[in-house]
Amino acid sequence: MANETEKVSVLRLSEDGKKSIEDVVVTEFPLTIILNNQELVTLLCSPTNLKYLTIGFLFSEGLLKSKDEVEKVIIDDRKGIVRVEARGVGDLDRDVLFKRLITSGCGRGASFYSASDVRNQVKVTSQIEISSHAILALVNEFQQRSILFKATGGVHSAALCDARDILVFSEDIGRHNAIDKIFGECLLEDITTDSRLIITSGRVSSEILLKVAKRNIPVLVSKSAPTDSGVHLANDLGITLVGFVRGKRMNVYTNSWRIVANGE
Amino acid sequence: MANETEKVSVLRLSEDGKKSIEDVVVTEFPLTIILNNQELVTLLCSPTNLKYLTIGFLFSEGLLKSKDEVEKVIIDDRKGIVRVEARGVGDLDRDVLFKRLITSGCGRGASFYSASDVRNQVKVTSQIEISSHAILALVNEFQQRSILFKATGGVHSAALCDARDILVFSEDIGRHNAIDKIFGECLLEDITTDSRLIITSGRVSSEILLKVAKRNIPVLVSKSAPTDSGVHLANDLGITLVGFVRGKRMNVYTNSWRIVANGE
Repeated sequence: MANETEKVSVLRLSEDGKKSIEDVVVTEFPLTIILNNQELVTLLCSPTNLKYLTIGFLFSEGLLKSKDEVEKVIIDDRKGIVRVEARGVGDLDRDVLFKRLITSGCGRGASFYSASDVRNQVKVTSQIEISSHAILALVNEFQQRSILFKATGGVHSAALCDARDILVFSEDIGRHNAIDKIFGECLLEDITTDSRLIITSGRVSSEILLKVAKRNIPVLVSKSAPTDSGVHLANDLGITLVGFVRGKRMNVYTNSWRIVANGE
Repeated sequence: MANETEKVSVLRLSEDGKKSIEDVVVTEFPLTIILNNQELVTLLCSPTNLKYLTIGFLFSEGLLKSKDEVEKVIIDDRKGIVRVEARGVGDLDRDVLFKRLITSGCGRGASFYSASDVRNQVKVTSQIEISSHAILALVNEFQQRSILFKATGGVHSAALCDARDILVFSEDIGRHNAIDKIFGECLLEDITTDSRLIITSGRVSSEILLKVAKRNIPVLVSKSAPTDSGVHLANDLGITLVGFVRGKRMNVYTNSWRIVANGE
């Protein structure tokens, strides 16, 4: 297995002059996913939880529907290849797949999911409420857990939580990958996502929002900014979107009835 | 033309309780690129400089080689469609294109360019030197110029500079798009990139590094972290990679001979 980080020697320039130091940078690991003997995609990722990433990715992309469909997952972490055998996956239409995968890149694609995925997406109806105090505590814990980020500054983090605790945590160079790792773990380990929260370090675009809606998650919390489409989708799909959680402040963009302000 | 931002009403929670405020979020605009009557990709972008983005994207992806090949660019910014007619582009092999485009997404693809693009990439040999003082001044100016980021916190910025000034500046929700907008403008407006610097707000992955190498740019400056592959490629391709420019400090990862420390 490749390491998550690598040491490099760096020239550090500051007001005190220059000196040679050792710096830690995050590793880019190419993982090629082969589904039923067909090469699908090469993800650039952090080399941890590759099985969870693979399964989470396949679910997020709609290529798998349930854990039962997964028959075999064989990971060659030296070559960076994962082979998945699954039932219920028809012949992959390269053209549809092309659009689907482009869509889920960073800043790639939109028309695809707005057309069909959003229409078919069921609204999240969970009646869960959570206090703003609990969200601040969870985000604080979230930052403490981000060890790879602290070491390198080069990764995103994601977490699945209930109102008290972080239940599943992941880090990856890609913000999509970090969330897919969470969902892959939930699916394979039978951890429910209903009535729970997702925290992400990354910005909330429509793609991220839709990914979270697919797992029926009622509350999405980000340390960063949402886009307009992220806000509109959250509103339409019944998701509470919280952004810019920093210090003791946060912005609640949609469905704010789920957030109970401190003192209420 | 769509607006770059949208106002949304937000519930702001803080230690002082809660209040309704108006917040500004960044717009996600889907732009579908049609090259010689073939639909290529839908980019999610910020709706400015769409012509530059389109041409920059096509060059970065290797689908265009020179400005002379571009015969017509027709933008329908209401529908979000740009039609490009170009000479010298053969029939597009969907399978090759598939790999190529996946590669350039965020955290997608690696094997493709490492195999052929890197091998074919000519080393950057510019003998330009620049002082650390000049880099700090440019990054300071860069941050002042990031108006959309200041308003929304939801975009990346990129700039082409010489040792004194920012020459071309762009902002976009995608870090790849922001750089492609710069390169598109350079190509269409005959602005040379040789012996100049690129500043980016985003992390430096191998993909970003390779994009910059293709424009023969000797110095890449980032406010954020590089990945291991970013560092290795910069080293191999003769590019000076500067990261974590913050306050009065910076890390020079590769080819540090181009950076003259203050006082030398």
